[in-house]
Amino acid sequence: MNMILIENCDLIDGSRAVITGRRFDHIRGQLRKKTGDECKCGLLNGNIGTGLITRLDADSLTIELQLAAPPPPAAPLILVSALPRPKTLRKMLHYAGTLGVKEFHFIGTFKVEKSYWDSPFLEPDFLNQEMRLALEQCVDTVPWQIHFHRFFKPFAEDILPGLAAGRELLAFHPAPDADEIKPVHDRETVVCLGPEGGFTDYEIQLLTEQGATRVSLGPRILRSEVALSFLLGKLL
Amino acid sequence: MNMILIENCDLIDGSRAVITGRRFDHIRGQLRKKTGDECKCGLLNGNIGTGLITRLDADSLTIELQLAAPPPPAAPLILVSALPRPKTLRKMLHYAGTLGVKEFHFIGTFKVEKSYWDSPFLEPDFLNQEMRLALEQCVDTVPWQIHFHRFFKPFAEDILPGLAAGRELLAFHPAPDADEIKPVHDRETVVCLGPEGGFTDYEIQLLTEQGATRVSLGPRILRSEVALSFLLGKLL
Repeated sequence: MNMILIENCDLIDGSRAVITGRRFDHIRGQLRKKTGDECKCGLLNGNIGTGLITRLDADSLTIELQLAAPPPPAAPLILVSALPRPKTLRKMLHYAGTLGVKEFHFIGTFKVEKSYWDSPFLEPDFLNQEMRLALEQCVDTVPWQIHFHRFFKPFAEDILPGLAAGRELLAFHPAPDADEIKPVHDRETVVCLGPEGGFTDYEIQLLTEQGATRVSLGPRILRSEVALSFLLGKLL
Repeated sequence: MNMILIENCDLIDGSRAVITGRRFDHIRGQLRKKTGDECKCGLLNGNIGTGLITRLDADSLTIELQLAAPPPPAAPLILVSALPRPKTLRKMLHYAGTLGVKEFHFIGTFKVEKSYWDSPFLEPDFLNQEMRLALEQCVDTVPWQIHFHRFFKPFAEDILPGLAAGRELLAFHPAPDADEIKPVHDRETVVCLGPEGGFTDYEIQLLTEQGATRVSLGPRILRSEVALSFLLGKLL
């Protein structure tokens, strides 16, 4: 936790917040802060700065906030990915989230296992908690948005055109004729990642019809989370 | 396992190998291969190609190898890193290893916890097994080399100059005056990563005296394994 993430419900007036639970335990137990000490704070959807501990009780503390710095810029990138196995989903969210990706679309493809859609990791409470952990890690306050689309064809035909309008559209597909990846700089981009085993020919054809350029990461086969953070390094 | 890694001790003549244990279980249990089927194989330190299953017994199988393709090119990069916590060490090796890094130097710095040096993950048997898993994942046959240097000063003064000779030397250090990262293309490069909490001023000064350029990944604070694969994306 590199920043204490404050939410509106923690505020008791315009500049003071009461912190309990996991964040209180972290400030007291790990950071060993006491009254008069400061710690890095950020307000969800707001600025980043410091919090001065003005009161310390047995299971809560009050901090006076001074939040002047804006959050770091978001990545100009929408991530579309075949729904991965639940453990990998968690890693992909953390990795891309801490690198500044703010919009995720997880989709069904032919090679996505049906059981993945029943995972408790897809529950809003779980995803919100993952988001808080990612924001605390990377010192950011802007929440991400996650969308799930169970069926490939309606996503590719009805949703993707809207996402891709005015943006570059890339589909990762290990093919001999795929392009090399280039940095996107400030161009808004939509990146599509296939499942383990890749998109089918039909799926890649539908993506290509929507204007996707096929790009490849080279001959090595990588775990999804490694491929994701490596390609974000290439793109951003 | 995207490739069966064959070692010299598996060979019974110039082109045939007998496979047992974990790899046998994978070929039979997961891939469900039988006599006459083929699977992707590579010889440690050698070529990559196919293996034809010519004989199948209860707990071993014999394959006839045809290995014509060279392994993928290695990354032109030596990785120097503060010794991370054991779980992170494992991830860093897997991530950088599957991305083609072939030389690792793990070093002691002021902020490296002493207990990390006693981890069983530093045993050669464990590290060799991690290497096999990484090569099987990324379809490569060239082993990596790992070196440990417990003390920072002798490493920086006596070992690093030899590593850095004829190579670009980069030190990751979140400083306002740090340079942005640029792709290394084919330039041989040595990359130094600090521990959680970073290098001390003294350490970064020693690295700078050896010719290191300070580079930064931006304002976000990332987990070591995310930072590593992201920066390899930027560099490679």
